[in-house]
Amino acid sequence: MTVPALSITRRLRNTPFTDHVNIAGVKSYTVYNRMLLPTSFNSMEEDYFHLKKHVQVWDVSCQRQVSVKGPDAAALMQRLTPRNLTNMVVGQCYYTPIVNDQGGMLNDPVTLKLAEDHYWISIADGDLLLWVKALAIGFGLIVSIEEPEVFPLAIQGPKASELMERVFGPEIQTIRFFRFQEFTFEGQKLIISRSGFSKQGGFEIYLNRSDLAAPLWNTLFKAGEDLQVRAGCPNLIERVESGLLSYGNDMTSENTPLECGLGRFCKIESDTNCIGNEALQKEAKAGTKCQIRSIAIEGDPLFPCDDKWPLFDGENHVGDVTSAVWSPDFETNVALGMVNKSHWENGTSLVVQTPQGIRKAIVYEKCFADRQ
Amino acid sequence: MTVPALSITRRLRNTPFTDHVNIAGVKSYTVYNRMLLPTSFNSMEEDYFHLKKHVQVWDVSCQRQVSVKGPDAAALMQRLTPRNLTNMVVGQCYYTPIVNDQGGMLNDPVTLKLAEDHYWISIADGDLLLWVKALAIGFGLIVSIEEPEVFPLAIQGPKASELMERVFGPEIQTIRFFRFQEFTFEGQKLIISRSGFSKQGGFEIYLNRSDLAAPLWNTLFKAGEDLQVRAGCPNLIERVESGLLSYGNDMTSENTPLECGLGRFCKIESDTNCIGNEALQKEAKAGTKCQIRSIAIEGDPLFPCDDKWPLFDGENHVGDVTSAVWSPDFETNVALGMVNKSHWENGTSLVVQTPQGIRKAIVYEKCFADRQ
Repeated sequence: MTVPALSITRRLRNTPFTDHVNIAGVKSYTVYNRMLLPTSFNSMEEDYFHLKKHVQVWDVSCQRQVSVKGPDAAALMQRLTPRNLTNMVVGQCYYTPIVNDQGGMLNDPVTLKLAEDHYWISIADGDLLLWVKALAIGFGLIVSIEEPEVFPLAIQGPKASELMERVFGPEIQTIRFFRFQEFTFEGQKLIISRSGFSKQGGFEIYLNRSDLAAPLWNTLFKAGEDLQVRAGCPNLIERVESGLLSYGNDMTSENTPLECGLGRFCKIESDTNCIGNEALQKEAKAGTKCQIRSIAIEGDPLFPCDDKWPLFDGENHVGDVTSAVWSPDFETNVALGMVNKSHWENGTSLVVQTPQGIRKAIVYEKCFADRQ
Repeated sequence: MTVPALSITRRLRNTPFTDHVNIAGVKSYTVYNRMLLPTSFNSMEEDYFHLKKHVQVWDVSCQRQVSVKGPDAAALMQRLTPRNLTNMVVGQCYYTPIVNDQGGMLNDPVTLKLAEDHYWISIADGDLLLWVKALAIGFGLIVSIEEPEVFPLAIQGPKASELMERVFGPEIQTIRFFRFQEFTFEGQKLIISRSGFSKQGGFEIYLNRSDLAAPLWNTLFKAGEDLQVRAGCPNLIERVESGLLSYGNDMTSENTPLECGLGRFCKIESDTNCIGNEALQKEAKAGTKCQIRSIAIEGDPLFPCDDKWPLFDGENHVGDVTSAVWSPDFETNVALGMVNKSHWENGTSLVVQTPQGIRKAIVYEKCFADRQ
């Protein structure tokens, strides 16, 4: 399987860290929100071992912010998501499934509450800005919707805490999981949250001045030299082992949050203003037809999953694998996929049709990392 | 300048033609509407010479359709665009700038009127589906908004007409420019328009059954063997020479249609229901500050334009180059960029700051192809 080249144009946006990422030896990119997102440096496996042991600096500028600000900000936010935002306090990060009128997933961002009338939706891949802005216009809400110049940099790995303390002081340890606080870097106030797209622990720095990208990058690398700090990126192996879903891969607008195992983030039992609430109530009543599961696929390492791989029980098509990769630690291909209710029980044995042939597949309820 | 690799995942969607494109020897891709779009086969220059002389088959499935259907379809369409749609008839294609409430460009699609209550918006890069759907919900319009399974295949080049006649019969010659008609292929009705993202002439086939991708591809290649038919793609050199704008490159939501030289498509003199009309009226009254121009950049061939390259008159920043490439036919670097009113006159001499140093640049009112 040959790896294609990516043509560079202005449309696929650079980030303020791109020069540093290139110098650090990025091997491949993906495109995410029309912006460059690195996908490997040394190799996916080396990056993976390093991430689980040390600390990495990730350019995740592509997690664009949709800023929702104004008197109707809270009301609009509650129309976007089935999650109950009533008790969300300033300084908190919420994982907020965003759904359309059919209950289909449009995005699975983390939302930061900056003030009573101001939120940042830190988005997965998809122009949520257009959705939010058009709803505000259509409903006639008093709210301003913008994509601010904010470029998140994630610090991930078991030594992230140590590195961040060296740069931002011991105060960094007071940030609880999925909370954020304001810190100062070179005189500029910026937000730091304890969060990130790995299970190894870490922080996200919401850089809000692109001219500080170089000083921030260099300060982190200098401070972390003896911690073996490296440039990194969300790692496919670690992500699938950890059961972290990727919008566009493991779910699309064809899937509801209930199918994605996000029922605990949905206040569907009562009437809310969420656009998709009626559809989700119907689904909850009728019963969800399929759900995301972790799946082990036997045999040799597989090529990347570039399309749905159908799961079969005999001749019955009972689900689809949507992400798959060889895990050195688990010594099997780890995968994620949607599995029908009839076959989603822990330990169910199926077969999956891959481009490399038919393989045996075992369905698991818990992700690989949680079954250790 | 090293060319990065593109990581393949399900999120960056394949098309029904991807296998054929790979076998045809695609060298590089871009990502467009979260879908693979080829950018070169032999080399950009060889592809360019071939396109200007023969006929090519382009997989432009990434031109996703936003289907707008229902009693309020026409009313919603007129809210989306400043272009007057009153006289648009079924069977017609309109180039329709889509703007937000500030008059900023959200997309520059071609819209097909399929029926009095049914339109397809054939979009450039950007999730316009979300914008249109959210407006429909917010305004409470009776209209259904979907992304149908339609995969456009463009047949472009001076021999396109001959090839299409061989496959679809002499009736194909009756389609006028920017019109479409229904044809039958292997028993399936599909739409063919006389249009495409080149100045070499040609057609777009809106394939609506993915299982017909292989028969359609193979039929075209067999019929065009003696015409030297090849797999191709929108060609950067030919596009810039022809002055064809690329959304995300030459314009973004920061630009209005007036700045993009699309004033003739805007009915701004009178009140329409277009969301951006008020903003555009203000701009028309005050005068447009900058406008797209063709620009010749002297010196050796330039690397791809991955960011704005500032244009200067002495120390004054008077515009930005947004696309640039070496043209073998014009023996200069051809470019597109926004130039301030003070400097947009034909023949104005400026300098541009490129990653390869300061170069002399000449501003032109007409595109290179039209100045021949």
